[in-house]
Amino acid sequence: MGYNALLERMGAVNDLLCAGSMLSWDARTMMPPGGADTRAKQMATLKVFARNHLVADETRRLLDAAEAETANLPEDSVERTICTQVREAIDYHLRIPAELVQRRAEMGSKGQHIWAKARAEDDFAAFAPVLEATLELNREMAECIGYEEHPYDALMYRFEPGETVASLRPLFAALRAGLLPLLRAIGEKEPPRVDFLERPFPADKQLEFALNMARKLGYDTNRGRLDLTVHPFEISFTRNDVRITTRVNGEWMPKGLFGTLHEAGHAMYEQYCDPAYTRTPLATDLIGLYAVGGVSFGAHESQSRLFENQVGRSREFWELNYGELRDAFPEELAGIDAETFWRAINRVRPGLIRVESDELTYDFHIMLRVDIEAALIDGSLKVADLPEAWNAKMKEYLGLEVPSDRLGALQDVHWSSGQVGTFCNYTIGNVMAGQLFAKAKTDDRVSRGLAAADYVPLREWMTEHVHRHGRRYTREQLLERATGRGLDPVPYVEYLTAKYSAIYDL
Amino acid sequence: MGYNALLERMGAVNDLLCAGSMLSWDARTMMPPGGADTRAKQMATLKVFARNHLVADETRRLLDAAEAETANLPEDSVERTICTQVREAIDYHLRIPAELVQRRAEMGSKGQHIWAKARAEDDFAAFAPVLEATLELNREMAECIGYEEHPYDALMYRFEPGETVASLRPLFAALRAGLLPLLRAIGEKEPPRVDFLERPFPADKQLEFALNMARKLGYDTNRGRLDLTVHPFEISFTRNDVRITTRVNGEWMPKGLFGTLHEAGHAMYEQYCDPAYTRTPLATDLIGLYAVGGVSFGAHESQSRLFENQVGRSREFWELNYGELRDAFPEELAGIDAETFWRAINRVRPGLIRVESDELTYDFHIMLRVDIEAALIDGSLKVADLPEAWNAKMKEYLGLEVPSDRLGALQDVHWSSGQVGTFCNYTIGNVMAGQLFAKAKTDDRVSRGLAAADYVPLREWMTEHVHRHGRRYTREQLLERATGRGLDPVPYVEYLTAKYSAIYDL
Repeated sequence: MGYNALLERMGAVNDLLCAGSMLSWDARTMMPPGGADTRAKQMATLKVFARNHLVADETRRLLDAAEAETANLPEDSVERTICTQVREAIDYHLRIPAELVQRRAEMGSKGQHIWAKARAEDDFAAFAPVLEATLELNREMAECIGYEEHPYDALMYRFEPGETVASLRPLFAALRAGLLPLLRAIGEKEPPRVDFLERPFPADKQLEFALNMARKLGYDTNRGRLDLTVHPFEISFTRNDVRITTRVNGEWMPKGLFGTLHEAGHAMYEQYCDPAYTRTPLATDLIGLYAVGGVSFGAHESQSRLFENQVGRSREFWELNYGELRDAFPEELAGIDAETFWRAINRVRPGLIRVESDELTYDFHIMLRVDIEAALIDGSLKVADLPEAWNAKMKEYLGLEVPSDRLGALQDVHWSSGQVGTFCNYTIGNVMAGQLFAKAKTDDRVSRGLAAADYVPLREWMTEHVHRHGRRYTREQLLERATGRGLDPVPYVEYLTAKYSAIYDL
Repeated sequence: MGYNALLERMGAVNDLLCAGSMLSWDARTMMPPGGADTRAKQMATLKVFARNHLVADETRRLLDAAEAETANLPEDSVERTICTQVREAIDYHLRIPAELVQRRAEMGSKGQHIWAKARAEDDFAAFAPVLEATLELNREMAECIGYEEHPYDALMYRFEPGETVASLRPLFAALRAGLLPLLRAIGEKEPPRVDFLERPFPADKQLEFALNMARKLGYDTNRGRLDLTVHPFEISFTRNDVRITTRVNGEWMPKGLFGTLHEAGHAMYEQYCDPAYTRTPLATDLIGLYAVGGVSFGAHESQSRLFENQVGRSREFWELNYGELRDAFPEELAGIDAETFWRAINRVRPGLIRVESDELTYDFHIMLRVDIEAALIDGSLKVADLPEAWNAKMKEYLGLEVPSDRLGALQDVHWSSGQVGTFCNYTIGNVMAGQLFAKAKTDDRVSRGLAAADYVPLREWMTEHVHRHGRRYTREQLLERATGRGLDPVPYVEYLTAKYSAIYDL
């Protein structure tokens, strides 16, 4: 009785959060421009109601009853896991004063205007006060959330629970050790030909082909749809409706295609969650207040990166699917063979902009940001010294001079909207993808499938070991169950080394 | 303090209801098929939260404070009107047991399946138990809501507050007296030529032309958009985002065009509500729990009918705009002049199906249903006798034999979903449109505008007298302020008489 009633209340929380996501999807795809102001209020209200319903006295009463009722079940049973997660989420939200949540929300909209202007005018000093305020607010948040060693740990907790500055240190060191030599070696080689990707490809055909490939990988359009937006994203309103967006342009054809595969990877994590978890805390991020089934942002990113890069940019994939691409674009790809195409989409070119960076350099953009954020939060780096620190790291990692802050420390929107601690998940996703894909390929069905352009076995393997569990296990538990060990950079470094050695004849 | 805090709470109710409408719009336009089940749950949750927030102890505490705070303001001030409406809505919802609301919702989904099957198989007996249950449930609702004379009055209260069986009697009598002779006279005349409207018109051009006309009448697409659906509708998420849908088909071109103008008429009521009323009870139906600014369903229908029929099907309109239509469809309309087109779109043809009926016969479909519903509710008509009563009225009003219940008493979805009392607003809308349009045309700016295809003055007149007030005044107060009298069928009958006399040379 207590447990079922608790589930019903959590179902309502999920409903409210799904509704919020729906409003967010619409705001980014369909909404007429006039709707923005009142839409923002509606989305804020839904989040407040979800939070209040979660922490309400009645929920806590039912939680007490549910805990008593399920006390004799195994500790890792679904029932007790749910109770533990609800307890943890309530404690979390009650530690954060409503006033602080409010200030954070207000800072978001104000800060973004100042940032946009400062970036346009390449004026870091104009942005500095916003960043100071963001940092102060996040330090306050960290104190409320609590941490053992470093305040940045508390900030990462919302996105990548369990990850700490201390745990990232050896991970980043291993990546630098493994990837910097690779990057240096590639820098001395002739780059592959890419000119044909810069031709205009008809937008509707790009979309059609991308969606076909996404379907082939397992994205279920009976429970999803693909639309065009400036910034691609994936969003879900239960596993039954998981939508993706992409953008196509005439300058760089891979953007739309791989953007689609990336978001489809995210989407499958949601679509293949155990249906029994629908509307439960195992498909709801009660800490971040999002209706999401993935266990962490990093785990989610592992699925997008795996299908985008490790599958979608592999030689094997294009040996099998290039014919279909060329049939769709016979003129644009005239005279280009599968091998040439595959090399082109894997071109490595260190650049200043994170969102435009390639598979190999992406992690350096992340490590740079995470180290800088942690140092800003603990005060070991002053805001005024940020551009210098940024530019020094850029030089150290990618060998690039940063000609202006617009292309450096002012490039990301995150800080202006009050967010700190959201970057590490991209690299964790890459590492985790490497680990999961290496393990999956040891399964005969999976490897035979990959060799025959049949991606169902791979998707099923991921569903069995990742998707279906939703938020039942921690990221580390999930990895241990799937691969026999916690997060381990070795397979990822090996994968990148093998791939780029082949492309660049290292 | 109390009043402002009350407004903020009502703002949240509006947010929740707007979110519910957003989910409903998406479900009917964009949602992939798999999403239906969980979407229904989400929409139900939003409604429950809106209702509970409205009736919560905290709202009632703030309402007491707000009433005390505003006691010295004039009774018809915005502040006191809002307090009165909130008080009334709370009382209304507290009179209806949650258990009854639940049963009603459950009946809706079950009943529709049985109805769809019964209709397909032309089996009234199979549907009869559903109708019995609907009637019983609505009788219970009526007892909870309360009424003075007839239980049907209580049911209409949710859609057309103040309307009663007694007040409808003289209205319907006047309409029958005015319109039946007209209908008989038309029946003896040669029908106008309509064959060219049955040709296929390209769908995208139909949509483009329809949207252009809607814009010309005043629909603001910066705060709205037009999509295609099987069943056209208008829906709003505050005045800042008011969307319409239509359908175009190859069988009857006027459907898409006039459907669009109809929904645009609804939309303008919402778009031109006083911005100060946004998120307040004056733009929220707290009884029906919809985020709607119109004061009654009938008042809303007055705006859709006015722009669709009284403006959109007028001779003057097509004298001025037919050129644009023919430019859009030069081949389809070759050899057809404005006069021929205007006569065709006003063709009168008594038919069995309400949703396909023309402007003159529509009210008879409504009167038939309202009289039958009232008699079913008070028990003077038995369910078993319904088909016979239906068919007799059809014969009496439109001179038609009903060959099967599928085309008769089984045609509407309403009863199967538990709804009774929703029909009268269509006829009230027609009558009210006649009254408002006659009055508006006495304004020089309006009539000069109409004569020059400038519809801004008309839209502004409606905004001044109808739109901007939202739910501030009752429908009767609104009519009295705008036209100097309450609901009056005379101008409507005069309008129809003049129009059809011209078309049919009576």
